[in-house]
Amino acid sequence: MALFCPIIAVIGGDTIFIYFFLCVFVSPCEEYLMAPFRPIIAVIGGAAPTPEEEAAAEAVGRALAEGGAILICGGRGGVMEAACRGAKSAGGLTIGILPGPDRREANPYVDIPIVTGMGEARNVIIARTAHAVVAVGGSYGTLSEMAYALLFGVPVVALGSWEVRRAGHPPAPIIYAVTPQEAAAHALALARK
Amino acid sequence: MALFCPIIAVIGGDTIFIYFFLCVFVSPCEEYLMAPFRPIIAVIGGAAPTPEEEAAAEAVGRALAEGGAILICGGRGGVMEAACRGAKSAGGLTIGILPGPDRREANPYVDIPIVTGMGEARNVIIARTAHAVVAVGGSYGTLSEMAYALLFGVPVVALGSWEVRRAGHPPAPIIYAVTPQEAAAHALALARK
Amino acid sequence: MALFCPIIAVIGGDTIFIYFFLCVFVSPCEEYLMAPFRPIIAVIGGAAPTPEEEAAAEAVGRALAEGGAILICGGRGGVMEAACRGAKSAGGLTIGILPGPDRREANPYVDIPIVTGMGEARNVIIARTAHAVVAVGGSYGTLSEMAYALLFGVPVVALGSWEVRRAGHPPAPIIYAVTPQEAAAHALALARK
Amino acid sequence: MALFCPIIAVIGGDTIFIYFFLCVFVSPCEEYLMAPFRPIIAVIGGAAPTPEEEAAAEAVGRALAEGGAILICGGRGGVMEAACRGAKSAGGLTIGILPGPDRREANPYVDIPIVTGMGEARNVIIARTAHAVVAVGGSYGTLSEMAYALLFGVPVVALGSWEVRRAGHPPAPIIYAVTPQEAAAHALALARK
Repeated sequence: MALFCPIIAVIGGDTIFIYFFLCVFVSPCEEYLMAPFRPIIAVIGGAAPTPEEEAAAEAVGRALAEGGAILICGGRGGVMEAACRGAKSAGGLTIGILPGPDRREANPYVDIPIVTGMGEARNVIIARTAHAVVAVGGSYGTLSEMAYALLFGVPVVALGSWEVRRAGHPPAPIIYAVTPQEAAAHALALARK
Repeated sequence: MALFCPIIAVIGGDTIFIYFFLCVFVSPCEEYLMAPFRPIIAVIGGAAPTPEEEAAAEAVGRALAEGGAILICGGRGGVMEAACRGAKSAGGLTIGILPGPDRREANPYVDIPIVTGMGEARNVIIARTAHAVVAVGGSYGTLSEMAYALLFGVPVVALGSWEVRRAGHPPAPIIYAVTPQEAAAHALALARK
Repeated sequence: MALFCPIIAVIGGDTIFIYFFLCVFVSPCEEYLMAPFRPIIAVIGGAAPTPEEEAAAEAVGRALAEGGAILICGGRGGVMEAACRGAKSAGGLTIGILPGPDRREANPYVDIPIVTGMGEARNVIIARTAHAVVAVGGSYGTLSEMAYALLFGVPVVALGSWEVRRAGHPPAPIIYAVTPQEAAAHALALARK
Repeated sequence: MALFCPIIAVIGGDTIFIYFFLCVFVSPCEEYLMAPFRPIIAVIGGAAPTPEEEAAAEAVGRALAEGGAILICGGRGGVMEAACRGAKSAGGLTIGILPGPDRREANPYVDIPIVTGMGEARNVIIARTAHAVVAVGGSYGTLSEMAYALLFGVPVVALGSWEVRRAGHPPAPIIYAVTPQEAAAHALALARK
């Protein structure tokens, strides 16, 4: 992708220095212009997390944004809001797939609120859109999203979340992480495959 | 099944005719006319069951119909078809919530094909519409339906299906049955609560 | 359609009369047992109709049930409730595709409430499931259903409803009826094609 | 649009260099970081447009991006692709709400593919998410999106698209534009209300 180099004239004493800068700060912006090539990674989890889960979600969101991913989530509070806050703290882009009919339902860290009005059926969209999913804690809604991701062949990383088991069925390919950084690293690696 | 025996007294001249109608044939029909008061029970499970799962699904479908329930399912093959076949063998009514855009996707035992064209998002509708859910085997699609039912507070009975567990989370209120008859009995009892 | 004839013994005075009844009332029930072969016809329209629209919807619902169709609608009040009431008055079967998350949203004449929780996205399901659609009055929700039916190739009959036109586009194949009976007759004929 | 002018003082030897960066190139990027405050405007229309419609859609997309809007569309070919191409030519951000289950269905100018797998039910999401809608030509799918936007109170601008009319109903508040620029200007103005 084209780099760009503003020409900056600097007057210092009696000399004019002309600098060609490689605007490293611009690079995160550039990535937005290349959005189709960046992985979209979901952080899923409940609206009423414990403080530990909330902190974990924020750390996951930050690490995903630092890793160059776009964050997708359900757009509401709790784990979703913490993940978005984390992603924004690292200059990331955040997408919220909202269940209700009103974009004001989005938490303040959602850049792009997608308003479905479809209730919990929107969980399908999160699972289908993501290149990988990180589950942080969560209740049955989170379990439905994990199940959908497994159904669609989307990699699932769990951090203090559900274990599922069926006698006679191969083990579900869920990756259990212990730290937020590990969870994000797994998701970033799997999303790029 | 409740018999329907109106006693009708007809006064004709000086004679009293007393009619006892034992309308045995009418009783299954009658229930359709009272559909809003009959429970709708879902049988969920995979499109590629084992022979044992297929037999179990058929037995569950039959027992549910004998118990007066309307059957709802995903409308396709495998466990869904077996459950519908069982329900029809007992004169039941069957509803198929189809994922694709074409009603011909329904198995031949579906009375009422509901055509969603919404893919796996239709799983939400099955879970929301049912008064109780019986899972027979199944893969991740089935797990998503169980998760949705748990999310919506709809009773879930499992027959050789998923177990779910999250550390620090109360156990999921899934009832594990051993026989199809037991599964159907649980579902019928829970649906009527 | 196979008729069935219960034998009824009537004791009157010293005489025993044996009656062979032709249970004409049973025939509508029988049809439920053959539901897959009956057309499903939608009546669409607003929740706040005029008295004339409400009466028309009821007459359409009745005529459709008399014609052997299963009625599908949005399951709520106004035109939807009137159509269901009409269908039930003729012994029909009624399906309500509900937008909200609760089956109690259904009007009292809905036999089978399908609970989507998907808001207005449920309009797609009504249009896809129906073999034909009758629009009675209606506002923009009704227009969306007409558009979907046209998109899916489902015949649309309008009774005091929307006209649509696009310069350079072939006229939309909407049939404009003048009376409820005419609307129902068109829908029944088109649904059987 | 806010310019971004960091002043950087660099002390080198005995000279103070003062740098004024006028990062004009950064400003479009900045907007991505402020995405929640930018309007999201939909361009809707068919997959098989005339060359004139395609050119119009591209011009609308470009004008919307120049006006600071994020573009949302159905993500596929025809009008959708032309609008995305136009938006990208002006450095805009594009969102595609895809009907199918696979992100590869997106046209090459979609930055953020949202994969619904919900077929035409995804039209609801486009209408709900947009602050305003521009219809360019289009067939019945487009009509369904216009109807949904009208239902949700989202402003609709039409460019060679549908006219709708119902006797006894107030005229639909569709704004008919003649040029792409006019259509985009209306949409931008209405979206900011």
